[in-house]
Amino acid sequence: MSFELTKPVLARIYADVAEGRDSAVLALLNELHASDIGRLIDRLPLEEAVYVYRLLGQEESAEVLVELEEDRREDLLASLTSREIAEDVGHIDSDDAADLMADMPEDKQREVIALIDDAEQREDIQELLTYPEGTAGALMAKELISVHADDSVGRAIVDMRQQAQDLDHIYTIYVVDKEERLHGILRFQDLLFSAKSIRSVIKDICDTNVVSVNVDTDVEEVVKLMKKYDVVVLPVVDKENRLVGRITFDDVMDVMTEEAEEDYQLASGISEDVDATDSPLVQIRARLPWLLIGLAGGILSSQIIARFEDELRIDPKMAFFMPLIAATAGNVGIQSSAIVVQGLASGMLEGVNVLSRLWKEIRVAVVTALVCGLLIFGLNLALHQSQALTYTVSLALFTVILTAAIFGTLIPLALDKLKVDPALATGPFVTTLNDIFGLLTYFTLGHLMYGLFQ
Amino acid sequence: MSFELTKPVLARIYADVAEGRDSAVLALLNELHASDIGRLIDRLPLEEAVYVYRLLGQEESAEVLVELEEDRREDLLASLTSREIAEDVGHIDSDDAADLMADMPEDKQREVIALIDDAEQREDIQELLTYPEGTAGALMAKELISVHADDSVGRAIVDMRQQAQDLDHIYTIYVVDKEERLHGILRFQDLLFSAKSIRSVIKDICDTNVVSVNVDTDVEEVVKLMKKYDVVVLPVVDKENRLVGRITFDDVMDVMTEEAEEDYQLASGISEDVDATDSPLVQIRARLPWLLIGLAGGILSSQIIARFEDELRIDPKMAFFMPLIAATAGNVGIQSSAIVVQGLASGMLEGVNVLSRLWKEIRVAVVTALVCGLLIFGLNLALHQSQALTYTVSLALFTVILTAAIFGTLIPLALDKLKVDPALATGPFVTTLNDIFGLLTYFTLGHLMYGLFQ
Repeated sequence: MSFELTKPVLARIYADVAEGRDSAVLALLNELHASDIGRLIDRLPLEEAVYVYRLLGQEESAEVLVELEEDRREDLLASLTSREIAEDVGHIDSDDAADLMADMPEDKQREVIALIDDAEQREDIQELLTYPEGTAGALMAKELISVHADDSVGRAIVDMRQQAQDLDHIYTIYVVDKEERLHGILRFQDLLFSAKSIRSVIKDICDTNVVSVNVDTDVEEVVKLMKKYDVVVLPVVDKENRLVGRITFDDVMDVMTEEAEEDYQLASGISEDVDATDSPLVQIRARLPWLLIGLAGGILSSQIIARFEDELRIDPKMAFFMPLIAATAGNVGIQSSAIVVQGLASGMLEGVNVLSRLWKEIRVAVVTALVCGLLIFGLNLALHQSQALTYTVSLALFTVILTAAIFGTLIPLALDKLKVDPALATGPFVTTLNDIFGLLTYFTLGHLMYGLFQ
Repeated sequence: MSFELTKPVLARIYADVAEGRDSAVLALLNELHASDIGRLIDRLPLEEAVYVYRLLGQEESAEVLVELEEDRREDLLASLTSREIAEDVGHIDSDDAADLMADMPEDKQREVIALIDDAEQREDIQELLTYPEGTAGALMAKELISVHADDSVGRAIVDMRQQAQDLDHIYTIYVVDKEERLHGILRFQDLLFSAKSIRSVIKDICDTNVVSVNVDTDVEEVVKLMKKYDVVVLPVVDKENRLVGRITFDDVMDVMTEEAEEDYQLASGISEDVDATDSPLVQIRARLPWLLIGLAGGILSSQIIARFEDELRIDPKMAFFMPLIAATAGNVGIQSSAIVVQGLASGMLEGVNVLSRLWKEIRVAVVTALVCGLLIFGLNLALHQSQALTYTVSLALFTVILTAAIFGTLIPLALDKLKVDPALATGPFVTTLNDIFGLLTYFTLGHLMYGLFQ
């Protein structure tokens, strides 16, 4: 089970594929889990990838499709006929099928949907495609098991047996009323092990204390609820509280990973969802805008420093400590913002006063600023720097640490209020602002100090 | 179910607690889920928190304990007697109980364990405490349902009924052989809906294709396996393949969140796992070391620039573009590292050649460097800067973008090879290195250019 797609293994498969040794390739594919086959197809050149894909049985090829990396999947789908795609999406869960379809051009989408044999699957996919991305509706699957509250246990078991045929995993049995409104859940234990007769009525043995979400609920809210209530699967209802789908933990895992990646990318100055496998062009598009913002900031900095050219002529040593001031301001700002961003993400800052948050941050900053300021003061004394420079550098360092901490705390809180992702505050944009503000502080203080001491 | 702990609600509870209106507090607690009560107890002053905690019924108080923030839990546990703690940990899953115990001083741990009434729970907790943190053994719970491969379905159902009493959720039924070695899993469908008689033997109807992990398996590997195989629960076996526990998705969610937070914190220059609720002292301890590294880098920068004091005297304008060069080097380096870090985390870089990764990054960097370099060249021409300065700034910008991209790619790959968390490369340490290297490049080029053009 723990097969690793190492370079020698890949080379062997590649040789087998190149020389058309189908039976050798198939023998290997049989050993592999769908996700491993997906990884393999991701790595092969497109032509070989399509070849391997077509060797797979129908059930398996559908599963592999779900596991592929996005770019590779798009290329592969473009190489398959609408009929082939329709057969594949007919064999996977409705949520995965809808995800696959969502990336296709609309005319191809229509063509494929029309070719799906199973009427129920066709309607399910069409329904799922109507929900906007980022909602519970777009994340949910239609496959679920539900029984009627007024039915007997015996009748429900007959019902369930029929529904269970389409399902890989059954996590929960839902109980609905006559209007298909969500009434409760039924635990397996209660069915299997209860001493109650098969004539008991479902509503008497089910648990009505059930957490559900609406089709419009934001996926981030879905993640929070699943974490909070430790549930594997959440039922999704429509406006009338009718049960329309379920969201399982594995979809939520993907959302969590994406969210974490998004925050990390924002903090690293990458604007789109790119990864190591994307083409250079995609990467440039995602990265260059941030660098240009940084560049604009650098140009603005140069203009600010230009105003202090006289100070630099009086003492070129002023230039020595510019990087120290700018970098420290940037570092402190990112730390302060990161703590707020994580606090917002985890819900820990819920119900916490902005002022009390700021007051804690200021206490941290004052101690930090004192330590750093005194260190640099001592160092400059030891190096026999001029009084003006010594005071300028240490006072500026103290000031920028304090202001960067305040900005770093307030900016993500403000972004959050404005419904902008607060993680933006840990990216290059705010660092650039802190750089500029830091240098302005430094040279203004320098102007004052050189006036005082000389 | 979607109760929000807003400030007015908190104020009301606080007033009720302060005036000892137990029935009002209890009425409210009854409305709340354990995780909400946890959040409430996190927010109250310690004395009031202990008071509310003691109002809870035993089952519920144990559940709430698990939901508390770490610092608050430690304080609360310190305020409770060993007998009270023993009663609480006797009522929760063994993995949660072991987690609670793990944070206690050893003598208190022994005292509490001795006071646990349930012998099985006592032994389970003792066993779990022996596994090192970060392994599957430390993450798993002992509660699970297993049946013997040679038993009949009828016999197995009797067996299961007994085991199910201790369990909240049953996700999977495990099948073991006579030596308790993991043999397979049994699906509910097969029990409930199969046409087979209750005289069938379990080993004939169970699925032997089961993914398991060893007690020593690293938790990161556990997360990867659960994501890869989309399983809610993983069985854990010992060296002899004997079934000893199970890991459920909710534990893995916590690990995923922690991992993502860790990467984000490393990228933000925060060394320990701190959050917004931690005391200023804890925050200073986590943040100051990184700032001091940055400070040391700044001091080193000042020494490097000092060697070029002559250049600065000839043209103080050299100082204008220092922040631009340093910031761009830092930004590019972080982007390049972030892409590698995510590629390593997601497994996308598995089987990918270092040289091919580097070659892609160099192509991205060359285009980026050309765009930025030409922009700044044009700008300086437009501003009628000296030829020497114009060439120095644009050439330096081009060079630092290229070198920062190369360092940014190689450093996380090297850290990963050295078994150090590659996310370290996106933090202040490497940014500082890029700053220094960028300035060195800038002034060296300046020295050459001013020699050439003047």
